[in-house]
Amino acid sequence: NFRTAPTNGNVIYGNRGMSLEQEINLSNKYYLETGQAVIHKKPIPIQIVNVNYPKRSAAVIKEAYFKQASTTDYNGVYHGHYIDFEAKETRNRSSFPLSNFHDHQIKHMKACVQQQGICFTIVKFVVRQEIYVMPSQILFAYWDNQESGRKSIPYEQIKRESYLINYQISPRLPYLQGVDQLIKKINLP
Amino acid sequence: NFRTAPTNGNVIYGNRGMSLEQEINLSNKYYLETGQAVIHKKPIPIQIVNVNYPKRSAAVIKEAYFKQASTTDYNGVYHGHYIDFEAKETRNRSSFPLSNFHDHQIKHMKACVQQQGICFTIVKFVVRQEIYVMPSQILFAYWDNQESGRKSIPYEQIKRESYLINYQISPRLPYLQGVDQLIKKINLP
Ligand SMILES: [Mg+2]
Ligand SMILES: [Mg+2]
Repeated sequence: NFRTAPTNGNVIYGNRGMSLEQEINLSNKYYLETGQAVIHKKPIPIQIVNVNYPKRSAAVIKEAYFKQASTTDYNGVYHGHYIDFEAKETRNRSSFPLSNFHDHQIKHMKACVQQQGICFTIVKFVVRQEIYVMPSQILFAYWDNQESGRKSIPYEQIKRESYLINYQISPRLPYLQGVDQLIKKINLP
Repeated sequence: NFRTAPTNGNVIYGNRGMSLEQEINLSNKYYLETGQAVIHKKPIPIQIVNVNYPKRSAAVIKEAYFKQASTTDYNGVYHGHYIDFEAKETRNRSSFPLSNFHDHQIKHMKACVQQQGICFTIVKFVVRQEIYVMPSQILFAYWDNQESGRKSIPYEQIKRESYLINYQISPRLPYLQGVDQLIKKINLP
């Protein structure tokens, strides 16, 4: 199909080699340097089993294992608000599978919302090349209703109830624009 | 000296084997379980060099190195406030040495304060068995004035301008009491 294929190809090509996490990390660096927000990716949790301490050089971890993260990917502070989010990519076109999440991540996000934190997921539909700031309430609603049989969030609902983020030069992914909308909506009477 | 020695001995004995970090982690667990705050220790940042992926078992990290932390030990959310702090012990009696900090940690805390985060240090004077929530402004003032020759914060000033935290049953270290005072003071007109 000549109408859509080349365009799709170009868009994907333009971002080839950079993951959503890398795009967010670059944006966070820009936000930090320009004094707009302090948001960091948390280090990967590791279970260290064996460490060597050679003389005259740095300690070497010789045996360690990846632990499952009990919280989310990113947190920080923005205009007095606590910010907490996950970043997830899907190649799915029509929905965002809940299998992208673990129970303890949802629990963590619910606890943060309880403390008046601003929680969301940055969802990238890779094939569509669309990125959304999705409010945690949408995620919670589908998560809590999985026994109904539905194991994913429909793309159309995300499109309707989330904030589309368009690429820019700096920051590459201006996702705080979506966060501003989210905060505005939460603060409505 | 019969009057003081046994008491000191008892108090130290009571906390033997538990580091300040362990005491804080226990308290955070209590705060989380009782819905009072969501505050976690950040994982130690690690530079992974070599990973084995054996068939039928978990990935093993075979070579990795400790990276210097670019932020602080703990962060999270409490009553809508972003909370960010370091935990530090000193065996010094008369002052708290600035050598406990790195420049990028101070930079991080200053950036968080700029975003209206609540930043502080939990300082434990091990020999005195006294624990304080010390506002970041005291730390910043001494840090920025090191060329004057003074490389530590006097105990007497910490005692006067910080919040003493006494051990309890649950949470063991009720440091949010100090944070409440800090927030109250910041919000004064
Ligand atoms: Mg992720
Ligand atoms: Mg520490």
